[in-house]
Amino acid sequence: MAGTDKTKASRAEGATPPFILVNPQLGQNIGTSARAMLNCGITEMRLVAPRDGWPNVEAVAAASGADRVLDGATLYGDTAKAIADLQAVYATTARERYMVKPVLTAREAAKEMRARVAEGQKVGVLFGPERAGLVNDDLALANALIRIPLNPGFSSLNLAQSVLLVGYEWFQAADETPGREDRYGWSPPAGKEMLQNFFTMLERELDECGFLRNIEKRPSMVRNIRNMFQRAQLSEQELRTLHGMVACLTDWRAGTDELGEPVRRRRKRKSEG
Amino acid sequence: MAGTDKTKASRAEGATPPFILVNPQLGQNIGTSARAMLNCGITEMRLVAPRDGWPNVEAVAAASGADRVLDGATLYGDTAKAIADLQAVYATTARERYMVKPVLTAREAAKEMRARVAEGQKVGVLFGPERAGLVNDDLALANALIRIPLNPGFSSLNLAQSVLLVGYEWFQAADETPGREDRYGWSPPAGKEMLQNFFTMLERELDECGFLRNIEKRPSMVRNIRNMFQRAQLSEQELRTLHGMVACLTDWRAGTDELGEPVRRRRKRKSEG
Repeated sequence: MAGTDKTKASRAEGATPPFILVNPQLGQNIGTSARAMLNCGITEMRLVAPRDGWPNVEAVAAASGADRVLDGATLYGDTAKAIADLQAVYATTARERYMVKPVLTAREAAKEMRARVAEGQKVGVLFGPERAGLVNDDLALANALIRIPLNPGFSSLNLAQSVLLVGYEWFQAADETPGREDRYGWSPPAGKEMLQNFFTMLERELDECGFLRNIEKRPSMVRNIRNMFQRAQLSEQELRTLHGMVACLTDWRAGTDELGEPVRRRRKRKSEG
Repeated sequence: MAGTDKTKASRAEGATPPFILVNPQLGQNIGTSARAMLNCGITEMRLVAPRDGWPNVEAVAAASGADRVLDGATLYGDTAKAIADLQAVYATTARERYMVKPVLTAREAAKEMRARVAEGQKVGVLFGPERAGLVNDDLALANALIRIPLNPGFSSLNLAQSVLLVGYEWFQAADETPGREDRYGWSPPAGKEMLQNFFTMLERELDECGFLRNIEKRPSMVRNIRNMFQRAQLSEQELRTLHGMVACLTDWRAGTDELGEPVRRRRKRKSEG
């Protein structure tokens, strides 16, 4: 999806967890991981012995503008050195590892990490190489494992997608976007008086054309019609549009086709007697 | 991350929302989208006029085994035809569109979709082409927009990543994995009696070697040591290991180095007089 607004500053700068890629293989995956990190406001990347060396031109090509993450990436010889300054480390794994260690969902891990960071702790997340994931010796360095709940019959994620999901939950854990926003553009939601005026006009026209001629059914028909328009949560502008539509449908002038024949007759309004 | 267990059936089969890719450009992105869908248990892909035609070998190469999604993909000439059988449609967008339409987070949309599906409705999600996203005429066909909260300074997502995040929330909305599970492998958590026995042994040895010789501080030191081991939530097996470690550290035999010189002296135990 497009939609980056480069004029806006990144949110959630500051105390964000470093994402530590252990022995990543393809430069392309490092680049797409950098992009996914920046999508989630996470800017500190650490690389442990990337297979193809560093820097890597393929990483830059794949980062789609997340160059600042790659430019700031730091390089380490082993995982222990890469986490030395951290106080809590979470390790991602897709497989059951039978380790005596807490296993968290990405959502729960994000909450825990936010809580630790709020206390001033420095936390980080380990991601393993593309094929095999983290080795058990690296997992043993972590406080807890993150296992993302996914289709158990097809749970294998690309490296950048693991990065995205963990980063996404990190971002959501502090994001305050309301779940649902009803948007009215520049026009405010229509007030009830305006809506009543529309109903009065619409029902008068429907009486006149005979649509509401069944006296017994008329009250429930009117209620049903009103409910439809209530549910649409119309804006003032939309209500003006509907007024215009009904007026036009009921007050047209006779037209002629290309042969000069009349194609619709003008229906006289009551007031015109 | 590795970790697919091909022996397990996909969860959440059945009533899952079709994901509708409108005018996708690169076959590779269709393939990675198929993989992301299957990661989330979503199997029905619909394609509206893919730029490079269909089928597409690059899509298959990028799907990493999600062939069943591609094999079952259906092709449509326009968006209206692709959604004709659905009762509610959600359209993803990264940009503010100033439409008079509800805007939902991916999480909220997932909840709404699950609720509709539970009522027997057929719902679907529209995804736009890579660069520009959905056109306004397509958005006008939708009940609501989905906008994923992300770094406002860098919110542009790859197509497969949009698919992944919406699918991920769909999966999470019905997933019952506990946020945190403490794992003990094959060995159960140690009972308190076993832990007490360890403390008794440890503190006897620490008294003997003089570590707890400060009578005034001894009670608080003992409490602090007990707290450390309580917090570790040890398994029975781990406690046996600790027992053995302490026994070994306090009861070692004299060793010799390669020159035959003794490297440590054996410390006599009290019981040995």
